[in-house]
Amino acid sequence: MELTSDWVVGFTDGEGCFYVGIYEHPEMSAKYQVLPEFRIVQHKRDVQVLFALKKFFRCGVVRKNREDRMELRIRKISCLSSLVEFFERHPLKTKKNVDFKRFAKIVRKMENQEHLTRDGLEKIVRIAAKMNTGEHSRLNEILEKISG
Amino acid sequence: MELTSDWVVGFTDGEGCFYVGIYEHPEMSAKYQVLPEFRIVQHKRDVQVLFALKKFFRCGVVRKNREDRMELRIRKISCLSSLVEFFERHPLKTKKNVDFKRFAKIVRKMENQEHLTRDGLEKIVRIAAKMNTGEHSRLNEILEKISG
Repeated sequence: MELTSDWVVGFTDGEGCFYVGIYEHPEMSAKYQVLPEFRIVQHKRDVQVLFALKKFFRCGVVRKNREDRMELRIRKISCLSSLVEFFERHPLKTKKNVDFKRFAKIVRKMENQEHLTRDGLEKIVRIAAKMNTGEHSRLNEILEKISG
Repeated sequence: MELTSDWVVGFTDGEGCFYVGIYEHPEMSAKYQVLPEFRIVQHKRDVQVLFALKKFFRCGVVRKNREDRMELRIRKISCLSSLVEFFERHPLKTKKNVDFKRFAKIVRKMENQEHLTRDGLEKIVRIAAKMNTGEHSRLNEILEKISG
């Protein structure tokens, strides 16, 4: 299955998810781990589309999501960097682009190792807390802890 | 907002819905009304994408779906005919294409007025019952009534 850039943008506008997980991690210098990921979930009947996307981005893992769903998940920072470049060249058309831009900022900061300092982490959590993931309150709690 | 064909295909692969409603309608010659529709539902924040799609297809109505969702709905048969031609020239990549082909067959039959005869209606309901809409049992009941 051959995918074009515009199809990938349209499909991502519909089904893509830019997510930044922030997890407590006592062993890390800033006490929290930042885990950005790009995810597309599909019913297993469409797993071949996930493999085509994996091939398109030359990145990611196709794995079980839950029940009869599969997902393509991209977590590697070098992969997310090239994903970010792709969606900067080919912008999303829905409001998902607002979250994408926040996601892109966080990926860039991680490329610069900023997530390993308390100050950089705080900036990242502030950006992540604005994203449309239903985690505002949890992330604001973390913010209070690390900026206090 | 300018949309390309490939973006529209990708977005429809994600968010589009091809639906054929079959409703009891005593005043119609075949006792049932066939109402195919193409629908894309979005959160109201992305209503401008629905208007861009309406402009792209030169068809349809943007209206409230429910709560904070809006939809583009295309029902007019002449509009559905040109929509069908579009997705035949630019095929969907997900398994939604299987349902689309059934939808296309039904739209063609309606263009030929086949839904107005009992025999044509039966053929249409048989196709609709195969579609992935969770209505198999309801449509099979209708089939028993009209083919009995």
